[in-house]
Amino acid sequence: MTRSPKFDVVGIGNAIVDVIARAEDDFLVANGIRKGGMTLIDEQAAARLYQSMGSATVASGGSAANTMVGLASLGGRAAFIGKVRNDEPGSAFRHDIGAVGVHFPTPAATSGAPTARCLVLVTPDGERTMSTYLGACVELGPLDIDAALIADAHIVYLEGYLWDPPQAKEAFRQASQAAHAAGARVALTLSDSFCVDRYRDEFLELIRTGVIDIVFANESELHALYQTSDFETAVNALRKERLLSFVTRSAEGCLVVDHGASIAVPSAPIEQLIDTTGAGDLFAAGALFGLARGKSLEQCAAIGALAAAEVIQHIGARPARSLADLLAQSAI
Amino acid sequence: MTRSPKFDVVGIGNAIVDVIARAEDDFLVANGIRKGGMTLIDEQAAARLYQSMGSATVASGGSAANTMVGLASLGGRAAFIGKVRNDEPGSAFRHDIGAVGVHFPTPAATSGAPTARCLVLVTPDGERTMSTYLGACVELGPLDIDAALIADAHIVYLEGYLWDPPQAKEAFRQASQAAHAAGARVALTLSDSFCVDRYRDEFLELIRTGVIDIVFANESELHALYQTSDFETAVNALRKERLLSFVTRSAEGCLVVDHGASIAVPSAPIEQLIDTTGAGDLFAAGALFGLARGKSLEQCAAIGALAAAEVIQHIGARPARSLADLLAQSAI
Repeated sequence: MTRSPKFDVVGIGNAIVDVIARAEDDFLVANGIRKGGMTLIDEQAAARLYQSMGSATVASGGSAANTMVGLASLGGRAAFIGKVRNDEPGSAFRHDIGAVGVHFPTPAATSGAPTARCLVLVTPDGERTMSTYLGACVELGPLDIDAALIADAHIVYLEGYLWDPPQAKEAFRQASQAAHAAGARVALTLSDSFCVDRYRDEFLELIRTGVIDIVFANESELHALYQTSDFETAVNALRKERLLSFVTRSAEGCLVVDHGASIAVPSAPIEQLIDTTGAGDLFAAGALFGLARGKSLEQCAAIGALAAAEVIQHIGARPARSLADLLAQSAI
Repeated sequence: MTRSPKFDVVGIGNAIVDVIARAEDDFLVANGIRKGGMTLIDEQAAARLYQSMGSATVASGGSAANTMVGLASLGGRAAFIGKVRNDEPGSAFRHDIGAVGVHFPTPAATSGAPTARCLVLVTPDGERTMSTYLGACVELGPLDIDAALIADAHIVYLEGYLWDPPQAKEAFRQASQAAHAAGARVALTLSDSFCVDRYRDEFLELIRTGVIDIVFANESELHALYQTSDFETAVNALRKERLLSFVTRSAEGCLVVDHGASIAVPSAPIEQLIDTTGAGDLFAAGALFGLARGKSLEQCAAIGALAAAEVIQHIGARPARSLADLLAQSAI
């Protein structure tokens, strides 16, 4: 029997509201924040950092959530599983993801920590540096994984950041099993090089035991995974894994490695780099859309590059224009 | 004795948080919203409109507040009087205006309606259409007007929108008296043509009885004030008033009318119009900065044009770059 799932992709991740401000590099140094990375902070540290940072805009974020919004903007059918609190930021998150047509069935937590927030500092070079208070995300657990929903997708997409909140790891494994039982593929983004440092052995085990079929990584995450500073060494290690990988290299484009074979796809042209927040998330959106719709791997990477190029030309991690329109106007 | 006030300008206005989303023109029509204007709505209508509008970003706003932030960004010393509630949006408003150095002494309301919000819909042509729920702004009253603060400014700047919340009108008159008693000038923005329609006779009385020394208006507000669709007719009426006026005409620049004499100043060049929200507010910021610092009227209008050009090239009503840097790089 041929599967005809309702959803192209179901994403599972931390449901986060972004609080975005511009900052000078000096500010990061003065506050001891590692530029370009994602650092976990507690509620008190988040309050202190917010106090000292500049005027901010607030927008829904979260890595896998951004990817699902990008997928919907491309015309894909997306669902998202993630935990907010029943507070004002949580309601805004639900509004925003619903407004672009992403199905979001996870009930809000009615007690405990508030909705997660990520303090995003954008430096003059367009690089973003994130400090995340996970809040209600720690409540995401196996009970939130609806096997019927998972079974109704071409691909289940999981973020590496899920290894941070304690129960989410179990939810992740359960989602992968449900997906494979239904004949769906499972994709993972490595999320962040420091996240890879925290969970290297577990990520390698996921890859090597077939829990994961598809991996998204940027150069520094790949270097962290194989503990090397040499790109060729890392790629050679990746070629030996039995999976499909998309390795993004910012302006240098993407290397697609498919069970040993590889193909390089260039990045899409931009006019001005404003804010890299969401670049990887939107690349994944485009590539997953292509995969779910049976495009060639080269086309998948090109759609990913197109979506990433849109999101880095403005402040915020979600598309400001219809990606379906951009795709229709492109030669892909 | 020469006055040397601590503040260049003290602004008084509605303290509002903007909820900004892109929308097609069809959406405005379907929801019966008057394009380009500011419509007052109640809390229920705001909740309904938010439900139906797209994914939104949240940023501090409010007309006079935006102007004070622009003034601070130019390097000016600004203070703001306005009423928020002690809730999350109110705290964000206080954080944002403080982060750019604007003094904001007004205590938050501890009961009653929540902090005001303005649902801003930006259409593909860059025009913004606003639906405002005034919330806690209705609590602003004479007790919030600190005469010592008012006396410590070169100029007191008031928004016409203050005529909407009932007690603010009295606060406005009181601020004008305190300003004049201290030797400060009083400026008014007419805010919105529909606002002028609501309060035409009162605005004309303020102008004609010397409560106001300086007026900011755009073309449609001026037409509404003198109930004419002919620009020359409106300007001729304005020339007869005994005050200084800045009439902004979007891409056509500004006409400065000073007790009968007038001078036209061109707009500043832009690359791409993205969102007109805050254009008038930032023009006023530049012009007020120039006035407080003793610049020529032509320079005042040119600084206003420079500040307006910055804010209309991105989403949101407050500057994304340092206006002081932009001014330093300009030939003004």
